[in-house]
Amino acid sequence: MARHVHRVKVAALTEQMPVPEAELRHLHVMRLRPGDTVQVFDGGGEVGEAELLSLDTLSAQLRLLSRRTATAEYPQSVTLAVALLKGDKLADVVRAGSELGAAAFQLLRTRYGDVPDIGDNKLGRLRRVAEEAARQSQRAVVPAVLAPVPLTGYDPAGQVFYAHPGSPVRLLDVLTWAAPVTLISGPEGGFAPEDLAHLSAIGATPITLGPRILRAETAPLALLGALAASGV
Amino acid sequence: MARHVHRVKVAALTEQMPVPEAELRHLHVMRLRPGDTVQVFDGGGEVGEAELLSLDTLSAQLRLLSRRTATAEYPQSVTLAVALLKGDKLADVVRAGSELGAAAFQLLRTRYGDVPDIGDNKLGRLRRVAEEAARQSQRAVVPAVLAPVPLTGYDPAGQVFYAHPGSPVRLLDVLTWAAPVTLISGPEGGFAPEDLAHLSAIGATPITLGPRILRAETAPLALLGALAASGV
Repeated sequence: MARHVHRVKVAALTEQMPVPEAELRHLHVMRLRPGDTVQVFDGGGEVGEAELLSLDTLSAQLRLLSRRTATAEYPQSVTLAVALLKGDKLADVVRAGSELGAAAFQLLRTRYGDVPDIGDNKLGRLRRVAEEAARQSQRAVVPAVLAPVPLTGYDPAGQVFYAHPGSPVRLLDVLTWAAPVTLISGPEGGFAPEDLAHLSAIGATPITLGPRILRAETAPLALLGALAASGV
Repeated sequence: MARHVHRVKVAALTEQMPVPEAELRHLHVMRLRPGDTVQVFDGGGEVGEAELLSLDTLSAQLRLLSRRTATAEYPQSVTLAVALLKGDKLADVVRAGSELGAAAFQLLRTRYGDVPDIGDNKLGRLRRVAEEAARQSQRAVVPAVLAPVPLTGYDPAGQVFYAHPGSPVRLLDVLTWAAPVTLISGPEGGFAPEDLAHLSAIGATPITLGPRILRAETAPLALLGALAASGV
């Protein structure tokens, strides 16, 4: 039977910890008993294991067994470079991408982009979306949202990948966590010839997302989802 | 330099194929030459490889080398079993999940679900979302959207997985394409003790989505994204 890890939020990870009143009922409902182990977290990045010392109707005490600083970041920075999309699509990509661990979003101008540029208001809004998503996901890092640059001039350091139908290459087969990672995702209309020529010229690797046709806002999340599901 | 697969849309896959005028410029810009190989597709599910026989300013001819019926379906059916979420979240999951190849969506009642049930109107709307998404993705299969059942009574055939923080198991390490696949995804409030007990009892495998905290509508798409990025 899979062991369920009970998580208890405490004010701070200390040798002896009182269980906050809000968490007491959970412990009772879960039928925890002195001697049981729970995971404790403070909401600020510290997590640990603790033993339940005592539990009665009005209070409970925990003893800290071990602690570590939780990091929800990938071993290397992962930048999502995404073409300018219309409407709320970029906000959706930034929100879910922030949950899925992107360290930065580089907006790209492409020939077939939905829109040729975005204004400061919209850029500011995307930055607020990233900040809020990072907060809700309890990430220590707030992803940057970088003003648009032309894809045909974009040459990031490290490993660069772009989703391309027909590519037989799988992201997890070629990605190493030894250098920063950039995932480039195109507009709804696809990459133009000059985009593809540039991607080849900078040595970007075309990778598969299978034979399915994905909307421009789905592809980047599928790529990040693959990273998340690899457990790093 | 990564080899780029050039895709040329033709009217039909025949022994000899004229290149449609709309595709000619692409061939010139890509500096293709007689003898080069391209991928051809008709937009209706047939794809193949073809050799460029001739190319001049006004026309080009291709010779079909091989063909196959493209299928955008996974080798086994993949069912996304998702807890009842509020607002438009289920529609977003059904839409993106349909793009990402889910064969069916099984709605689930769970203790911590956002809502206890959904009405026929909403169920009908989700079915229309699935149909439209399948159409736009050119899928031959329209995913089913199944009326809610309690998670604690749900026991699907084949391989069953659920995302669980703290699990060290990676989906792609344990998934085989030898039996139908079910991916179970919980509500925003997480799985209740009876949910976890039931998942254990039916032998469902807890899998990782990394240390990140994901919203209930993001997790299922990350799981499907992992499948898509594995290229099947």
